Amino acid sequence: MRPSKRDAQDIRPVSLERGVSKYAEGSCLIRCGDTHVLCTASIAERVPPWMRGLGRGWVTAEYGMLPRATSDRTRREATAGRQSGRTLEIQRLIGRSLRAAIDLDKLGEVQITVDCDVLQADGGTRTASITGAWVALHDCVQWMKARNMVTQDPIKDHVAAISCGLYRDMAVCDLDYAEDSEAQADANFVMTGKGELIEVQGTAEGAPFSEAAFIELLSLARGGISRLVDLQKTAVG
Amino acid sequence: MRPSKRDAQDIRPVSLERGVSKYAEGSCLIRCGDTHVLCTASIAERVPPWMRGLGRGWVTAEYGMLPRATSDRTRREATAGRQSGRTLEIQRLIGRSLRAAIDLDKLGEVQITVDCDVLQADGGTRTASITGAWVALHDCVQWMKARNMVTQDPIKDHVAAISCGLYRDMAVCDLDYAEDSEAQADANFVMTGKGELIEVQGTAEGAPFSEAAFIELLSLARGGISRLVDLQKTAVG
Amino acid sequence: MRPSKRDAQDIRPVSLERGVSKYAEGSCLIRCGDTHVLCTASIAERVPPWMRGLGRGWVTAEYGMLPRATSDRTRREATAGRQSGRTLEIQRLIGRSLRAAIDLDKLGEVQITVDCDVLQADGGTRTASITGAWVALHDCVQWMKARNMVTQDPIKDHVAAISCGLYRDMAVCDLDYAEDSEAQADANFVMTGKGELIEVQGTAEGAPFSEAAFIELLSLARGGISRLVDLQKTAVG
Amino acid sequence: MRPSKRDAQDIRPVSLERGVSKYAEGSCLIRCGDTHVLCTASIAERVPPWMRGLGRGWVTAEYGMLPRATSDRTRREATAGRQSGRTLEIQRLIGRSLRAAIDLDKLGEVQITVDCDVLQADGGTRTASITGAWVALHDCVQWMKARNMVTQDPIKDHVAAISCGLYRDMAVCDLDYAEDSEAQADANFVMTGKGELIEVQGTAEGAPFSEAAFIELLSLARGGISRLVDLQKTAVG
Amino acid sequence: MRPSKRDAQDIRPVSLERGVSKYAEGSCLIRCGDTHVLCTASIAERVPPWMRGLGRGWVTAEYGMLPRATSDRTRREATAGRQSGRTLEIQRLIGRSLRAAIDLDKLGEVQITVDCDVLQADGGTRTASITGAWVALHDCVQWMKARNMVTQDPIKDHVAAISCGLYRDMAVCDLDYAEDSEAQADANFVMTGKGELIEVQGTAEGAPFSEAAFIELLSLARGGISRLVDLQKTAVG
Amino acid sequence: MRPSKRDAQDIRPVSLERGVSKYAEGSCLIRCGDTHVLCTASIAERVPPWMRGLGRGWVTAEYGMLPRATSDRTRREATAGRQSGRTLEIQRLIGRSLRAAIDLDKLGEVQITVDCDVLQADGGTRTASITGAWVALHDCVQWMKARNMVTQDPIKDHVAAISCGLYRDMAVCDLDYAEDSEAQADANFVMTGKGELIEVQGTAEGAPFSEAAFIELLSLARGGISRLVDLQKTAVG
Repeated sequence: MRPSKRDAQDIRPVSLERGVSKYAEGSCLIRCGDTHVLCTASIAERVPPWMRGLGRGWVTAEYGMLPRATSDRTRREATAGRQSGRTLEIQRLIGRSLRAAIDLDKLGEVQITVDCDVLQADGGTRTASITGAWVALHDCVQWMKARNMVTQDPIKDHVAAISCGLYRDMAVCDLDYAEDSEAQADANFVMTGKGELIEVQGTAEGAPFSEAAFIELLSLARGGISRLVDLQKTAVG
Repeated sequence: MRPSKRDAQDIRPVSLERGVSKYAEGSCLIRCGDTHVLCTASIAERVPPWMRGLGRGWVTAEYGMLPRATSDRTRREATAGRQSGRTLEIQRLIGRSLRAAIDLDKLGEVQITVDCDVLQADGGTRTASITGAWVALHDCVQWMKARNMVTQDPIKDHVAAISCGLYRDMAVCDLDYAEDSEAQADANFVMTGKGELIEVQGTAEGAPFSEAAFIELLSLARGGISRLVDLQKTAVG
Repeated sequence: MRPSKRDAQDIRPVSLERGVSKYAEGSCLIRCGDTHVLCTASIAERVPPWMRGLGRGWVTAEYGMLPRATSDRTRREATAGRQSGRTLEIQRLIGRSLRAAIDLDKLGEVQITVDCDVLQADGGTRTASITGAWVALHDCVQWMKARNMVTQDPIKDHVAAISCGLYRDMAVCDLDYAEDSEAQADANFVMTGKGELIEVQGTAEGAPFSEAAFIELLSLARGGISRLVDLQKTAVG
Repeated sequence: MRPSKRDAQDIRPVSLERGVSKYAEGSCLIRCGDTHVLCTASIAERVPPWMRGLGRGWVTAEYGMLPRATSDRTRREATAGRQSGRTLEIQRLIGRSLRAAIDLDKLGEVQITVDCDVLQADGGTRTASITGAWVALHDCVQWMKARNMVTQDPIKDHVAAISCGLYRDMAVCDLDYAEDSEAQADANFVMTGKGELIEVQGTAEGAPFSEAAFIELLSLARGGISRLVDLQKTAVG
Repeated sequence: MRPSKRDAQDIRPVSLERGVSKYAEGSCLIRCGDTHVLCTASIAERVPPWMRGLGRGWVTAEYGMLPRATSDRTRREATAGRQSGRTLEIQRLIGRSLRAAIDLDKLGEVQITVDCDVLQADGGTRTASITGAWVALHDCVQWMKARNMVTQDPIKDHVAAISCGLYRDMAVCDLDYAEDSEAQADANFVMTGKGELIEVQGTAEGAPFSEAAFIELLSLARGGISRLVDLQKTAVG
Repeated sequence: MRPSKRDAQDIRPVSLERGVSKYAEGSCLIRCGDTHVLCTASIAERVPPWMRGLGRGWVTAEYGMLPRATSDRTRREATAGRQSGRTLEIQRLIGRSLRAAIDLDKLGEVQITVDCDVLQADGGTRTASITGAWVALHDCVQWMKARNMVTQDPIKDHVAAISCGLYRDMAVCDLDYAEDSEAQADANFVMTGKGELIEVQGTAEGAPFSEAAFIELLSLARGGISRLVDLQKTAVG
């Protein structure tokens, strides 16, 4: 029995609220249960130095957590003077995932930065960030289209993500914090709207896990991500 | 004529939403027009080293802005590796203001950290932070009272803040960004519920200003803060 | 009775020694009692990036304290790896104050950096820095005039500063450290030679203070600054 | 055809040279083709603060590359002032992988730090680090056993790692740099001697990949890791 | 002919002004021509961690330059976020030199920090720092003696320093900046009052130099340091 | 009697292994007894900003130690966030020494960076770095010659270095760690192939030392460096 009473394949209630920022070219507040992430997409005319003059665009991501997004207050990274390894790892993952959704050649020589700031954390902040960031990125591209900044649609497909894990010897979908903190294994999956894989990250927390267990997690993820993509379609439709 | 059509003494619509955080001991989302600040109060058992063993508490504040809280995206301070001078100045101001509201001797040897994170900025973020932070601090103290962590009420009075300025030769109350960016003078006032001064910070932006003009700003601030204190009373009442 | 036996409106003995640096385009060693600040003004051909090509100049300030300028040795900021919030706040204040003294359009596209380094601290280091920095800035502009680098005098007026406070329920002018450390309220005032306000920063240290008390501090400051401006006139005359 | 003429399932020539450090309690220089990593295991009496007094040990890893380990010189991280996101991600991966190999309760309250320093890089530095680090860790534990610092063997199993990828539409094992730089997908696998999974990290570089392709990579990895574990057994036998 | 018209063996006019700091336990403003260094000695009860409980003292030094101590303004190290390699090298040299002057066992478990801050630089700042720092250290020890903090005199001997160099093929003593900037070789010597060596640092700037030339520099240094020690004796006598 | 049984003038067994890096334009692994340093020379088209457009080259050096190069594990400088004063001092010394070996005008506008990374340390790492770095630099220049990047040979002479010291009242050559850690005085000498001096750095560790003792160290160094230069000639011959 899961702490939230959900069945093994159930994801938490999800809402995708678009246009929440007065300034950003695209924005989305995603709520997956008690995990809330504010995603904003910002356009800049400058691409990174190694891309200048190539006529291609770039998409990157940054991730942060408010200090009291967590059960115990976490030290603010701006006062610590550096982003933690965990933060850097997550924002690299979000960036790679978003770039798989977009044809950078069609974007023109601009950079889109998607900021994912966790207002409240209850497990799955990195996967919620990806799912919400895609909506912000989509709306940013719409904003560009409305201004004739792009001629062909650079969005190739949906991208969404979910974590699955082994909790008390059972494979379950969309771990919340109560489950995540005692999971035996934990895996994050990022997929396209067509169900192909972009990123897979699985970690044994206690004992190592079998290939069969991993395949089961992958199967649960496919179902959860399919539901998230449907929600994205409804949101931007 | 103000860009927002407000009269000189009018403040923007203000809402104070309590209990917005699942985890924080006290929290408040303050909205002053399009300026939105999430304030959370967190208790820790540890006071700063120089206060250990004295039996007194401490209240401190931290301030941050989401990168796209502003019209143009601002660099994330965690990636810059340090808080800017502006940020440090603001969080020192918030901390001093809150400590004026509370009897540290009655708090017991705990530290309360109030985080003020600007989700959206349209002028007056530091004063909105103070007004909202007081509510979060109040609720944190209520939380302590409910657990018998304090025996006497450490809250001495309300604390609220507002900025006033000279805009096109007219003294106006509660500057928004459109006014702030071309104000001739700008002053922030922090006052108690009884109308006494805690902090005064006035700056000439272009030409220096006269004592008479300054007194006029102070008078407008008194009115605005009085209304904010009424809203705080309603919110926590 | 003040520890220094001064009357309420008395400032400390002040000396302004010009030309103390072999290299700087303008320099002044200001002594306000036991507070000694070495101010040097340096010209650079480069303005900050956001001002390039506009034909306007820029004036900025930096502030520092020698480690043993204080009663107890303070950690050197260069070893701490960053300037403290207090330092950043002070150097921003000095910079804003000096820019109020000068017409940047008439300066031409150069940057003047005024360094204020506290050799010995006995209260009022930021206000002494402003008063001394104005002299260094003035002499730097004279240096430019002598080389025909400016055609019209960019200096608009004198700028000087003083702190006043409530000490044992009495409003007093020009706090020294013995007073400052137990003042009930402390306010810094920056004014022009004509007596107009550039900056006002008042802080309640213990109990909040009344508007009447604040007006009294402002009045004392006006007297003190008037005497400092006279000393500046004598020094540069 | 692979650039190295290897068959799809072939790993590069591997050597594991033990005892290469005069000082370290365990050490191994691993060479996987032209990728050379020096791994040293160091014992310290201090565990991290959150583990003190629990009687359990800790194993952690650090990773670095000499500046000219790469084709173009890379900036030294010590001069950059921080470890890159890539470095932090890799050393976190190595640490997690090693902890899966060891029973921390049986280790006693000591910390073992395994440093993996890449002397020369030709692809697969993180997986080579894990395979070599296990040998250094093993020898460090032997060193402890010889001194009666542990009573029961804390080593639970072998741990080794390899990267596989899709190169010109073919699944291949043990990517070298020439393959890695144009791979369509790239996955790192960490497994135990029994063939169970510890970590899985797959990334689409260009187009997303199918589940079937991923399963094929996993199968290749199983073969490669099996060979690496045999080499570890020979080395420490 | 030297730019300053001095003979080869002549040092610049030197003054040693004691007691220049209101707060420091020992202080000295040394002027060697236009090189001016403010040296303060500060006592702390805490020794570095590796020396605690041993009953021995420690002497350390820090070095800094005001930004406009030099002909062109130098960036403030506190804003750069780190001390330069040159600064670290110099303060390590000063510390080692001072520790050669003192019997740390007789000092008791205290740390003396000598800050050497260059107010104006015209060559030879590191050697002037050492000569002046010895006076500050001496007076600090006198201060301790007057309070019975030491029972035996920990000062073993004088320590002073000078730079010599090859300027236009001539060996000269006490280089000023005009000479230093075009010297063929440059050597700093630190000696005791008895004329024994503590530190020797010689560097070829252009062509390498012969042993004979080096011996000649050493001989000049002996003469110069002897005069500096006489001046120290007069100052503290 | 020296711990290594060597006679006073004996250096340790030295090997110079060239071409150890697959990528670097020049490389050398130097082993002096148990001190092992990997030296790589890397060419870059960019010279430092202050040298651009002058047509001259630049040679610089960086130095690092693997964390477990030493008897006790040393903290990795990349995690500490800065290079230590010792590291900066050493790499400045190596850079100056190498620049004395080369005619920068004949090098053309390129920068050569020589990285010296200590794999294992048993005393004398800075002097071994210089001796090995010269070989890497030499081979890098040969690489340039083979590609007609230089028209005249920029190498002026050999450069090698050794440390000598007073150990148990005896002057000895090429200190190892056992001697270095209890030496009364320690001096590093850098010389050309012709026996002229480039750098001299002598330090009294306990009591100051006499000029006669220093001359004796210099004489021993001359012999040791002569042997090192012979080994360099054999290596590159």
